[in-house]
Amino acid sequence: MIGVRKAFEEIHQYGVNISTHLFKQSDPKTFNTETKLILENNPEGVVLAPFFLRESKEFIEELMKRNIPYVFIDSNLNECCKLSFIGQNSFQSGTLAAKLLDYSVPAEASILILHFAKQLDNMNHLVQREKGFYEYFSKNRPESKRKLITREIADPTSEESQNVIKTLLQTNPEILGIFVTNSQVYYLANILEELNLTNIRVIGHDLINENISFLKKGIVDFLICQRPEEQGYNAIITLFEHLILKKEVKSENYTSIDIITKENVDYYK
Amino acid sequence: MIGVRKAFEEIHQYGVNISTHLFKQSDPKTFNTETKLILENNPEGVVLAPFFLRESKEFIEELMKRNIPYVFIDSNLNECCKLSFIGQNSFQSGTLAAKLLDYSVPAEASILILHFAKQLDNMNHLVQREKGFYEYFSKNRPESKRKLITREIADPTSEESQNVIKTLLQTNPEILGIFVTNSQVYYLANILEELNLTNIRVIGHDLINENISFLKKGIVDFLICQRPEEQGYNAIITLFEHLILKKEVKSENYTSIDIITKENVDYYK
Repeated sequence: MIGVRKAFEEIHQYGVNISTHLFKQSDPKTFNTETKLILENNPEGVVLAPFFLRESKEFIEELMKRNIPYVFIDSNLNECCKLSFIGQNSFQSGTLAAKLLDYSVPAEASILILHFAKQLDNMNHLVQREKGFYEYFSKNRPESKRKLITREIADPTSEESQNVIKTLLQTNPEILGIFVTNSQVYYLANILEELNLTNIRVIGHDLINENISFLKKGIVDFLICQRPEEQGYNAIITLFEHLILKKEVKSENYTSIDIITKENVDYYK
Repeated sequence: MIGVRKAFEEIHQYGVNISTHLFKQSDPKTFNTETKLILENNPEGVVLAPFFLRESKEFIEELMKRNIPYVFIDSNLNECCKLSFIGQNSFQSGTLAAKLLDYSVPAEASILILHFAKQLDNMNHLVQREKGFYEYFSKNRPESKRKLITREIADPTSEESQNVIKTLLQTNPEILGIFVTNSQVYYLANILEELNLTNIRVIGHDLINENISFLKKGIVDFLICQRPEEQGYNAIITLFEHLILKKEVKSENYTSIDIITKENVDYYK
């Protein structure tokens, strides 16, 4: 929201108003409620994180009927007539995660890919990250016998799910690397800390406080990040340039794919 | 220079003039020639990369006599009364390089630290990087028997030096990781390519074209970078704020320590 506010300060003199609507990443219903409210307000343009595939498509169809331009942030849907996408290349960030774990884990060890998500097929950017991850190994290590194991865990807060993960790790001690495909890597870090499993390399996404804390403890090794304030800022400015200045805008605007470790986190801006 | 030009555009309306002086990183004499010219111009403030320790100190003494404030970029000298330092924490970037090689190279392999520099003791930031590198291992791997080997090569362009490196690598096949402490890692990459040594992990500094090319080929694995245009911009603005706006400025302003690989280089801005 810092980037959105910064953009608003620059453009509010043009009579632009911004209203913000938040949804829960764990609940597509909250997404639906907010998109209904947005449509009632009949905005001239929309910036949208198309987090849930199905619900986003319904919303987009309605925007298109009404000729309301929309900019995607965070996650990209290729099949839609968006004005622009601003965010990370999810496939490529998956490839990077694979390289870091490939380098960090002995050649004969197994690697676990963990999705903390309900209805994974509804979450395009996580699917893209997984695809990029597998692509790295099939392209760079075609001869390797390394085992890659993928698991989906709908609710990492439940005791049942946590026990599933614990059993998985205890019965497969050859798993020495874990990639969590979203920002919820701290749930896994909690389990690793509890089990005192210190020899597993862990990589996740996003610089949220819980993750930073496990990064500094050395339980999470790498976090892949982007500069979220840049995303919000660029999305609003893109919409403004299209609607008010009638300028042509870039249809894809990829943000950086940053690697954060314990050693450089304090210098990251 | 992009950052310097951007800063100049913002402040030239205040009647500020900027003159730029370049020196060769391989030749302290060119540094001396330029600092003499600068002193003849008697500027109101100086932005300076104190690349050569002795020559920088002489120059600084003269600036201090004349009460001319100066801002360091790129490399820091702790003992001087600078107005501000803007750049990377060299010690910490050395620590990060050590972590990346520690993770990428088998526990029993040796690691070579290569300085491509004449008179290393005159080059503070390379010394700091090496210190940070060793500190990582002594702190995190106190029990390890891993061998760290440091070599100084005055002139990586000479055939003699290149033969020294070739012999070193061929007689020490247990060296599976190499850290080049500055931007000249491409000289090493050339040798590795020639000898077809594909199983050595290599880390260096700075996104110059020669390095990017070897990064994309997979011969250099990691480059540690900063955003140089940010440095130039911030240095000029800092001096401006001090001299013209009479504002208090921060005495240390560390830039980010970015990790660039083949996988994220195209998204780095």
